[in-house]
Amino acid sequence: MSTLIFKQKPRIIGWYSVVGKKESEGPLGYTFSRIVKDEYFGEKTHEGSERKFFITAIQGAIQVAGVQPDIVFAGDLLNQIVSSSFAMRDIGLPYVGVYGACSTMALSLLTAATFLESGVIQTAVAVAGSHFATAERQYRTPLEFGNQRPPTAQWTVTGAGATVLSTKQKSRFAVTCGTIGRVVDYGVKDVNNMGAAMAPAAADTLMRHFKNTKTKPSDYDAIFSGDLGQIGEEALRDLLKEQGYDLGENYYDCGKLIYDASQKVDMGGSGCGCSAVTLNGFIMNKFRNGEYHKILFMATGALLSPTTSFQGESTPGIANAVVIEEVTE
Amino acid sequence: MSTLIFKQKPRIIGWYSVVGKKESEGPLGYTFSRIVKDEYFGEKTHEGSERKFFITAIQGAIQVAGVQPDIVFAGDLLNQIVSSSFAMRDIGLPYVGVYGACSTMALSLLTAATFLESGVIQTAVAVAGSHFATAERQYRTPLEFGNQRPPTAQWTVTGAGATVLSTKQKSRFAVTCGTIGRVVDYGVKDVNNMGAAMAPAAADTLMRHFKNTKTKPSDYDAIFSGDLGQIGEEALRDLLKEQGYDLGENYYDCGKLIYDASQKVDMGGSGCGCSAVTLNGFIMNKFRNGEYHKILFMATGALLSPTTSFQGESTPGIANAVVIEEVTE
Repeated sequence: MSTLIFKQKPRIIGWYSVVGKKESEGPLGYTFSRIVKDEYFGEKTHEGSERKFFITAIQGAIQVAGVQPDIVFAGDLLNQIVSSSFAMRDIGLPYVGVYGACSTMALSLLTAATFLESGVIQTAVAVAGSHFATAERQYRTPLEFGNQRPPTAQWTVTGAGATVLSTKQKSRFAVTCGTIGRVVDYGVKDVNNMGAAMAPAAADTLMRHFKNTKTKPSDYDAIFSGDLGQIGEEALRDLLKEQGYDLGENYYDCGKLIYDASQKVDMGGSGCGCSAVTLNGFIMNKFRNGEYHKILFMATGALLSPTTSFQGESTPGIANAVVIEEVTE
Repeated sequence: MSTLIFKQKPRIIGWYSVVGKKESEGPLGYTFSRIVKDEYFGEKTHEGSERKFFITAIQGAIQVAGVQPDIVFAGDLLNQIVSSSFAMRDIGLPYVGVYGACSTMALSLLTAATFLESGVIQTAVAVAGSHFATAERQYRTPLEFGNQRPPTAQWTVTGAGATVLSTKQKSRFAVTCGTIGRVVDYGVKDVNNMGAAMAPAAADTLMRHFKNTKTKPSDYDAIFSGDLGQIGEEALRDLLKEQGYDLGENYYDCGKLIYDASQKVDMGGSGCGCSAVTLNGFIMNKFRNGEYHKILFMATGALLSPTTSFQGESTPGIANAVVIEEVTE
């Protein structure tokens, strides 16, 4: 079964989010741990900047948790996940690189939680992030090119979020289960319409999750998708309705939450960082404030590369879902 | 602790390797499950071919094992690990993408074994692979460019290897422990000398592994590195000698085993596929034949990207080590 049940209930003992200027000006701006207004973060390149967001998030979360982790689980959008790998050169801890495109925050959480569940380690950090300028350069065109954004485009979030999990230290919040995604491809070839490419994978994961856990949307205080954006969100609602599930009023897309319409981001936010900073800011703060007791966090990823797009391939999608809930024992 | 001890001893219930023409003509040619002489594997692109090697290895291993796995753990060298992701579109099973450059076979094995250890799943496939033509295009220059190979270069193996692990079905062979790598960077900037970049990480992992497990090189029938090649192998022997460990006669590098000197591969084989097919051919066959009872399989990876090289960054390395042994109970 691809739904993982964590009997040990790995606890969330620390979280940290660091974002750029634009994200700080959005509706969730007040929820982030740190704001960095310089898009270069004092580095010479945007790639160096993205790396520094990772280091800042990892170190920030470790400081909040107050314990040294055994392993860091990290991934990002850049080729060869260099933001994670180069950040880990500075962090110096053992490192498992994971890749699920924009679903990476959920994948790193699920992988970290499973390692804790197995008992082979006791503390782990899960981290993901992205940078607007590096993602544009790699997946579309460098910013200097001045390309016009099509109306279906999304805006890659600049920021990184990290979560510290532990089976040794207690906290009120735990990762209790989750569902690993399958690769689903409905044939979408428009690299500026990721929401449409990812929605079928999101629907596949959600339906398997609800069936395997015998839950329904209303069993959660909130359900979050990572960065489906407006088109993807509507597609997901429709796909689930066909299968008899009504996502209702408590379903949100991190990509829609993070920016305001006045910020000219078209369909909303995207990138690994979008769901990572929303989880490690807005969502976890709601838990701390007692507003949430059980949520479903599902991040979605488009598994394309520029090479596959140039070769005429469509965009496969994936979605990984994690249940976070308040526990008493 | 970054050394993972698997009490459940996940069993290896199937393995499969598929390689290209050059690999079939090397000293290990007789050990592979399948030979594909067409470098395009009937596809239009080398990228499509690499994907087909993955599909063939995964399906082959599943057929040998005779059980349907819960999750496939896969990774490769191409940007956004598209060979794994696109292969999984055809396989249709839940999928965890991992990335450790050429250390990926060891990383996918360790991750799969930990998921089994935790009890959340019972059967998993670990897979990795590479293709000479796609790796040259992405990391150096396309073959059509006709670039001259420097003498420190290695030859990327065309092939994929897959291992099926299970806690439900029995077999004589098990993954009993392993050590997760740390990112180590000694400042090597030559993209044609990966062996030198990876050797320090290999030494770091080996020394931690020996200390954490209280073992020494002679406790293993054989120790394999993934693709250090001749320069990297010598550097690793020297680095370990400084720390009081003599790797001795039972240490081999898969990159040196897989090709013959007459095949003009300079420092030897490389790529995720190098260690993946050697493990799922030569090494596991030795177990089956009773020649091996306990080995240490350590794959090494160079975590660079073309972008980081162009930006003047050095090449960080990583190494992941897995212990495979014969078990009686």
